Amino acid sequence: MEPPMARRPVVGIVGGGQLARMMAVAAIELELHVRVLARSIDEPAAGCAREVVLGDPSDVDVLVGFAAGCTVTTFDHELVPGGTLRRAEAAGARLRPGADAMAVASDKGLTRELARRIGVPVAPYELADRLPDAVAAAHRLGGAVVAKDTRGGYDGRGVHPVRRPDDLAPLFAALERRPLVLEPHLPIRRELAATVVRRPSGELAHYPVVETVQQDGVCRLVLAPAAIDAERERDIQRWTAALAAALGHAGVLTVEWFDTDGGLLLNELAPRPHNSAHYTIDACSTSQFENHLRAVLDLPLGSTGMIVPSAASANLLSGITREVDVVDLAAEPSARLHRYGKAPRPGRKVGHVTLCGDDRDDMAQRALRLTAPLATAGAAR
Amino acid sequence: MEPPMARRPVVGIVGGGQLARMMAVAAIELELHVRVLARSIDEPAAGCAREVVLGDPSDVDVLVGFAAGCTVTTFDHELVPGGTLRRAEAAGARLRPGADAMAVASDKGLTRELARRIGVPVAPYELADRLPDAVAAAHRLGGAVVAKDTRGGYDGRGVHPVRRPDDLAPLFAALERRPLVLEPHLPIRRELAATVVRRPSGELAHYPVVETVQQDGVCRLVLAPAAIDAERERDIQRWTAALAAALGHAGVLTVEWFDTDGGLLLNELAPRPHNSAHYTIDACSTSQFENHLRAVLDLPLGSTGMIVPSAASANLLSGITREVDVVDLAAEPSARLHRYGKAPRPGRKVGHVTLCGDDRDDMAQRALRLTAPLATAGAAR
Repeated sequence: MEPPMARRPVVGIVGGGQLARMMAVAAIELELHVRVLARSIDEPAAGCAREVVLGDPSDVDVLVGFAAGCTVTTFDHELVPGGTLRRAEAAGARLRPGADAMAVASDKGLTRELARRIGVPVAPYELADRLPDAVAAAHRLGGAVVAKDTRGGYDGRGVHPVRRPDDLAPLFAALERRPLVLEPHLPIRRELAATVVRRPSGELAHYPVVETVQQDGVCRLVLAPAAIDAERERDIQRWTAALAAALGHAGVLTVEWFDTDGGLLLNELAPRPHNSAHYTIDACSTSQFENHLRAVLDLPLGSTGMIVPSAASANLLSGITREVDVVDLAAEPSARLHRYGKAPRPGRKVGHVTLCGDDRDDMAQRALRLTAPLATAGAAR
Repeated sequence: MEPPMARRPVVGIVGGGQLARMMAVAAIELELHVRVLARSIDEPAAGCAREVVLGDPSDVDVLVGFAAGCTVTTFDHELVPGGTLRRAEAAGARLRPGADAMAVASDKGLTRELARRIGVPVAPYELADRLPDAVAAAHRLGGAVVAKDTRGGYDGRGVHPVRRPDDLAPLFAALERRPLVLEPHLPIRRELAATVVRRPSGELAHYPVVETVQQDGVCRLVLAPAAIDAERERDIQRWTAALAAALGHAGVLTVEWFDTDGGLLLNELAPRPHNSAHYTIDACSTSQFENHLRAVLDLPLGSTGMIVPSAASANLLSGITREVDVVDLAAEPSARLHRYGKAPRPGRKVGHVTLCGDDRDDMAQRALRLTAPLATAGAAR
């Protein structure tokens, strides 16, 4: 039996990070009720969500109890173990996306298996959970490979370039790394990202494909839309939609793509709002955060079209880039600042700025200048 | 002696209505700390401000105590008596705008005196606080006049068209109405509004002049930018800036104008964010709410430029228009919905929708259709 519904819908969000925070902000003016399951009252979403529950979502009793009071429950992150999600769902939790979609989308191995099965291009890869298998696989893949943790990697963590197969040994010393995905070194020209939003009923809408610029494995800049021909954009959108449908996804899904000499290849999936679509808050009719809430509640989706010709977003990385505050905006009065309410810690994403205008590359230069690396920030002042 | 400053600035807001609510939303992503002085926890801003204090701002001790903990204190409304504001300021409250600016801007008589003094066009008018004086003034002004309460009028309240001077008598029965401003009936072609934002230091920025469409004295629709020639726009902006400077204003100031056969004439002032500039949330680089916070803190102003060619906002009036919710947006997927978290009550503004695009009049028609009057909403479905 389904637990009784609240009179008005409540969206539960597992995790209180910046994604939950930006969902909570989007919820306010829609009069949607957001309840966040955070580990601490200091988390970014705790200050602006309608309600905050403190607890550990990896504890299945906590998760089931939280979800019981919510119309649907969605996610700020993929850190809850798959087994916990499946047990919660079996106990009646209405998870959006569901446990199966979360399990596949947050696992680089399962994602590649799915992609291969439905005809979405992926690099040659092998999965290995023992060192000898990994070494043999690396030899088959050409020697120099990239070994990737199947789960939990982000911002360059969990990605290990290996020059020779023998260099794989230290990775297998850490037990929780198994299995690893092994791929050949790819000549990557640039990285692209495609975000879709999908209702449980199957209705789906595409945001424009964007270009992401990484620095030391962390996204530094997003350019919207990507400079890409119509045919390749259609391919990416078709593949992204096919992945969302195959997952039975509900909510926002971002798929990252490598643009290589050998064509477009899947990189990874994020089954939730994603850094590469933060620009949608300022540049699109409906932000990814608003559309995620609308989708998980199975409400009509908002337009994903851009309302400006182009946009560039740059991340604020604590200790690495300038941590822009309102005073710094004197240098760029048309920039839109989004800070996440996070304590500074080296490398941490503490916010982003977005510029909108006619000339994408000019916006990009200005966004980078505003968020200049700290080493050069002094000189630029 | 100034009370000790908080380590990070705190903006106090007197009043917890929708203007305070939209300021509170703007504050979140700037990491500005907003503290709202509300009368009840059910007020629109109470659910999303960082802090809420419950109390009556007309009680000078409450107001002084509230302001003492805030870097600056600003306003959601003009309901606090001028004497209370002056006493609070004398006791150390840092009010933005200050008590003098609030006193003049929220009084139709004082506003007209100021305008006349600095050369801003106003209709012929007289002030009268006794019935015989009012009757004599009405005769001098041509017989048919509009009598206006000097304070507290909004949404058509406090404006009394009078066909014959003798019809003034009932107005003087209500003691709190005195004095009244008397003006001749004006042939109004349309209404315009100009919003500026001004720092205490004097820096000032103009939002585009917009056209407002009233229905039964309540704003139904805002069109941005107004269809207006450059010279007339410059005049309006020059006069609006002159009024802001003469007031020593801090924050957002909106001046409403009548476009008449005899030229442009001052209507009234609002010394705070205003309904006619709600479109700035979606259509401008920096919303009026963000710029109000920046201005009252004397921080650099954001760009007031539009990022889209045009926009139209329509108000949601409880019991009069459709009270649009997310489900209704299926009919208009590019509309941006802003609901105020207010209980329905006939005639109450409970939200607004904004459409952005190339064709202002098309946006206007679509915004009106989405918020169709209730009598025809059934037929349109």
